[in-house]
Amino acid sequence: MLRIGLLTSGGDCQALNATMRGIVKTVLNNAKEKVEIYGFEDGYQGLIYGRYRKMEWADFSGVLTKGGTILGTSRTPFKMLDTPEADGVEKVPAMVANYRKLKLDCLFMLGGNGSTKTANRLRQEGLNVIALPKTIDNDTWGTDMTFGFPSAIDVATRCIDDIHTTASSHGRVFVIEIMGHKVGWIPLYAGVAGGADVILIPEIPYDMDNVVAAIERREEKGGRFAIVVVAEGAISREEAAMKKKAYKAKVAARVKPSVAYDIAEEIAARTGREVRVAVPGHTQRGGAPDAQDRIFATQCGVEAARACLEGQFGFMVAQRAGKMVRVPLEDVAGKLKYVDPDSDLVREAKLLGISFGDE
Amino acid sequence: MLRIGLLTSGGDCQALNATMRGIVKTVLNNAKEKVEIYGFEDGYQGLIYGRYRKMEWADFSGVLTKGGTILGTSRTPFKMLDTPEADGVEKVPAMVANYRKLKLDCLFMLGGNGSTKTANRLRQEGLNVIALPKTIDNDTWGTDMTFGFPSAIDVATRCIDDIHTTASSHGRVFVIEIMGHKVGWIPLYAGVAGGADVILIPEIPYDMDNVVAAIERREEKGGRFAIVVVAEGAISREEAAMKKKAYKAKVAARVKPSVAYDIAEEIAARTGREVRVAVPGHTQRGGAPDAQDRIFATQCGVEAARACLEGQFGFMVAQRAGKMVRVPLEDVAGKLKYVDPDSDLVREAKLLGISFGDE
Amino acid sequence: MLRIGLLTSGGDCQALNATMRGIVKTVLNNAKEKVEIYGFEDGYQGLIYGRYRKMEWADFSGVLTKGGTILGTSRTPFKMLDTPEADGVEKVPAMVANYRKLKLDCLFMLGGNGSTKTANRLRQEGLNVIALPKTIDNDTWGTDMTFGFPSAIDVATRCIDDIHTTASSHGRVFVIEIMGHKVGWIPLYAGVAGGADVILIPEIPYDMDNVVAAIERREEKGGRFAIVVVAEGAISREEAAMKKKAYKAKVAARVKPSVAYDIAEEIAARTGREVRVAVPGHTQRGGAPDAQDRIFATQCGVEAARACLEGQFGFMVAQRAGKMVRVPLEDVAGKLKYVDPDSDLVREAKLLGISFGDE
Amino acid sequence: MLRIGLLTSGGDCQALNATMRGIVKTVLNNAKEKVEIYGFEDGYQGLIYGRYRKMEWADFSGVLTKGGTILGTSRTPFKMLDTPEADGVEKVPAMVANYRKLKLDCLFMLGGNGSTKTANRLRQEGLNVIALPKTIDNDTWGTDMTFGFPSAIDVATRCIDDIHTTASSHGRVFVIEIMGHKVGWIPLYAGVAGGADVILIPEIPYDMDNVVAAIERREEKGGRFAIVVVAEGAISREEAAMKKKAYKAKVAARVKPSVAYDIAEEIAARTGREVRVAVPGHTQRGGAPDAQDRIFATQCGVEAARACLEGQFGFMVAQRAGKMVRVPLEDVAGKLKYVDPDSDLVREAKLLGISFGDE
Repeated sequence: MLRIGLLTSGGDCQALNATMRGIVKTVLNNAKEKVEIYGFEDGYQGLIYGRYRKMEWADFSGVLTKGGTILGTSRTPFKMLDTPEADGVEKVPAMVANYRKLKLDCLFMLGGNGSTKTANRLRQEGLNVIALPKTIDNDTWGTDMTFGFPSAIDVATRCIDDIHTTASSHGRVFVIEIMGHKVGWIPLYAGVAGGADVILIPEIPYDMDNVVAAIERREEKGGRFAIVVVAEGAISREEAAMKKKAYKAKVAARVKPSVAYDIAEEIAARTGREVRVAVPGHTQRGGAPDAQDRIFATQCGVEAARACLEGQFGFMVAQRAGKMVRVPLEDVAGKLKYVDPDSDLVREAKLLGISFGDE
Repeated sequence: MLRIGLLTSGGDCQALNATMRGIVKTVLNNAKEKVEIYGFEDGYQGLIYGRYRKMEWADFSGVLTKGGTILGTSRTPFKMLDTPEADGVEKVPAMVANYRKLKLDCLFMLGGNGSTKTANRLRQEGLNVIALPKTIDNDTWGTDMTFGFPSAIDVATRCIDDIHTTASSHGRVFVIEIMGHKVGWIPLYAGVAGGADVILIPEIPYDMDNVVAAIERREEKGGRFAIVVVAEGAISREEAAMKKKAYKAKVAARVKPSVAYDIAEEIAARTGREVRVAVPGHTQRGGAPDAQDRIFATQCGVEAARACLEGQFGFMVAQRAGKMVRVPLEDVAGKLKYVDPDSDLVREAKLLGISFGDE
Repeated sequence: MLRIGLLTSGGDCQALNATMRGIVKTVLNNAKEKVEIYGFEDGYQGLIYGRYRKMEWADFSGVLTKGGTILGTSRTPFKMLDTPEADGVEKVPAMVANYRKLKLDCLFMLGGNGSTKTANRLRQEGLNVIALPKTIDNDTWGTDMTFGFPSAIDVATRCIDDIHTTASSHGRVFVIEIMGHKVGWIPLYAGVAGGADVILIPEIPYDMDNVVAAIERREEKGGRFAIVVVAEGAISREEAAMKKKAYKAKVAARVKPSVAYDIAEEIAARTGREVRVAVPGHTQRGGAPDAQDRIFATQCGVEAARACLEGQFGFMVAQRAGKMVRVPLEDVAGKLKYVDPDSDLVREAKLLGISFGDE
Repeated sequence: MLRIGLLTSGGDCQALNATMRGIVKTVLNNAKEKVEIYGFEDGYQGLIYGRYRKMEWADFSGVLTKGGTILGTSRTPFKMLDTPEADGVEKVPAMVANYRKLKLDCLFMLGGNGSTKTANRLRQEGLNVIALPKTIDNDTWGTDMTFGFPSAIDVATRCIDDIHTTASSHGRVFVIEIMGHKVGWIPLYAGVAGGADVILIPEIPYDMDNVVAAIERREEKGGRFAIVVVAEGAISREEAAMKKKAYKAKVAARVKPSVAYDIAEEIAARTGREVRVAVPGHTQRGGAPDAQDRIFATQCGVEAARACLEGQFGFMVAQRAGKMVRVPLEDVAGKLKYVDPDSDLVREAKLLGISFGDE
């Protein structure tokens, strides 16, 4: 008997179900023994509080194209693991106990950076854990790509496309805020795909003088409108100089007063142009996964299942230079992957004439 | 020689180009004489200041699927017509003069309510004007449908769909603000199409007690999440009691502090639930027109061209009970078409269990 | 206790699940008594052979956007009802018996023309039947619209759009075969929406001389490419003269040797142009329903449920001039709704310069 | 003065315009001197017969999202280069002469395998040529990816998705023929993305016994339907044994009697199942490019422009392991890139339970 557990942790994304289908289909097709599948509800919460359901192949049939996660998810910050808090539950021992009670052979954890830290902690406690790199933000260290990222680029690009027609009809400047948490991957990719004129990302602090100059340069060349893509974590040089403090505060408070509005107001004030704002927000993690995402998600699922069947645990499956690899959890846990300001795509974007506000 | 002018006025929408293609194609195909086409740039601004270009069929080839307007558009409030202001230009005489200078036989004006008032004014001055009902908001009196409306419903529905997956994964309440200006057509249609649980529109002032009760009722029945669709012009009973004053102020200020955020905060405070907001904004008027929109836009264009070839002017083309008709401009000018709170779709939505916050 | 049965019959379409959700949600929300729901599998087959499942609200939650039918469907030709055949089962008595055994109060039947005949037969046997107008073909007599039709137009239009770019790049003539069974609704609507140059539908038999002339006329005006939309049931005047015999044979044999290929060959031979064929086929009944379809499907579901709760049976719910109405099953059964060659949309399309091959 | 020429050759694809925009935008932004741009019409035909137009930035503005090619394209087989034929024109000298007459500094050629052979020939004649890897088929040797490929996967996957709902509703086997010319890249990727049960590609000749067995195995496990993805160049072992002769003939004749129909008939005959066929055909090269395609196309354009500005010619820009590189034209010309039957994705697909008909 092979007993496997599944959980999805942190912010949801488009190819979570596709990934789980890849795991389950591969395990069922290749296991020599009978397989039992347990799905924990709402991320680590399900493992902590023993909320799970026994699942069959039928539960995963047809979910390839289905966004979100059929298991539900939640954010369980790492620092809460060791705080029994109000409910008095010791989180780590509770998770270990539930794993043992179900006699699991392996726990598949689909999650991002924070969730990987917790996965590593469980590994240290002796559990067999395999992590799979989930996040629209593509900020997981150790892998070139994460599932969710391709589909998020699609949604963000579609938003920029939609804005293009209205921006050009009215001759307006549009500031579009794109997700990405502390990094600029989605804004960079969607900005290039959508034909943005300016892209502002956390890794390249901007100077508003340069942004304004770029918009005016475009106007002089006859451009009726301009598209400014702003990462939700974008920071100016002044903010950056304050050693990330301002930055962290901004990300923390990002639910309502979005960065884009402040930048839009400043552009309007300094250029005298009509400026509008678009914030696609959570739609970027919603909807069905695109083809590229489903393929990568499936590959992650197959690789994770393969490892489990080989009896290998304690790592995150990842892709590097087009190859699926396995990266030790202790190497991954808690590390972010940033956009390199000197990377090819940034350099190419600059050759195209896209301004990052840094020169 | 037949000389026609075209202009697109007010907020842009998805099927403006499709409509102009319909006009031009029909005129060119059926006119007995040679045809000259003049396109005025940026709405009435082009007619006032004599900014126009001579156009050929080639300019309209391939625009059927193209969002926005190839002529550009602008908002020229009716009350500005009689204020020479800083530039010293008498707007109405300037428009009449430019029309006369080009010896136009007809001016096709694609615009919404405000623009129709101006069109009627030009009619009174003796110009041959034909208006076509453009607006995503569907608030044009005298016609069952406007072009732009079907595509806006699509974008809004797609947004609700995308939010559904993330809302259900996290078990959250989402408040989605949908466009519509002073009326609730898009929120009503997209809300039904997207499976909303609550729909708040200006025509049905809401009581927050009822909204909260609807969300809690859903939770009791096992609904993990809830979708609240809010019109950008939604008002509470308290606001409505203030005789529209608060309402007008809110619409006027709607650029930044969107209605959805206030409602979300109140729901969060009163239910203790995790609430998030999505504001698709201008994407709702962007992108390519859908099939239904293109068909209706084409029908409007054909009907307007047909009237011009028949020598009939001074009306807006419209659709009533599935038939294309012509409505006198003086009947249309300045009137809004509201959602009837007792209409079939509202009644059907209530039978489905959708709350409008009124009971 | 209120006991309802549901079945989906005939070719599938996009909004079947959305319709059933509308029925079930309305019944559950408004019934005074407890409700039991039975879903019959694979259309009338399930009713004949007693294959059904008891269903809960949870089965219908989330199906609004899901194409196909969760119940499965099948074609059960009317003439087979009275042939016990190999299996020795008397079909009509078997259906009545299963209905009685479950003590059903009402059977909701989602189906097209043929299926409505069977529904009428069951009504004559004393069963409480409510039919709902399902079909992508829009050929159901008694209603202006059917669910499935809007989404099929979308898919067909998207196909024409995709072909446009390749046709224009290569300067080719493309013949695109669009579904519609014996009528031309989808080809007419998608042809107008997609900017077709020629549209051939069964209701307007074509003369190839006219088709060739239209293509050559377009070429003379500088059109590098041409789009010919052909209904799967399109017939030439010669074929039509043979009193529908050839026509029927063609429809019957349409699975493989599609009509479009023959027409393409003839165009290639007579114009010397490079001609290609596209046959989107079953994709036209697949995928998710669009917003318009979901709204109409929901309205049908609500109206049918409302009637059931009022104790009214024996009709098909329908839409006429924008209003939901109830049409007696005996009036509907076995009648087709054809495109009127003198209808507004055909006339408008001709004014646009679209050729129907008849002049 | 810098004078550049552009041409698009062979079958069209989705990101041709995006690529040209990348070239032109980069050259205009970074050239030290004035730039003249010449666009040749309909591929090499324009270069041979001197059909070109002088172009400005405005011609490339807004084409990022536009499918097809604004220059037009044509297939000019390599072997025709040295056959003056009927028109008496010596093709190669004519191309050299037109290049010289316009005093071009560089010719950018967007094309696939055959077109690259011709580009290499022009290089041998002393022209400065830079090739860019265009094709939906991804069969260009020397690069991991071609532009057009990502978007074609999208269209093909969407088709499989659409078919899924109808296949499952009716419990049918569907055979879907996917493009790819002599190789199986699109069917492999779209098959995995779309959740196919069987994928047949030219690189892995199939045995119908295995295909039938896979379908029956799925049925035994409760699968109501099955999706068989067939490459347009798929061959059985028998055909393969005939040393590619049959294979070539089949590809040559592929316009009408598509491979999918034969395979469908055989499956129907051997399984007794209801089988249907879908052939999305040319839609796979039509429509707008997706985000991934636009990014890669832009990167190709930037890299090609950068090389031109550096005075480097005679190669194709390519991507290997995520990096843009330059591959000598003589290495690329005339070589195909096949799917490796032992590659990771094939192996992973087999672990998932997908049958390739080879075992």
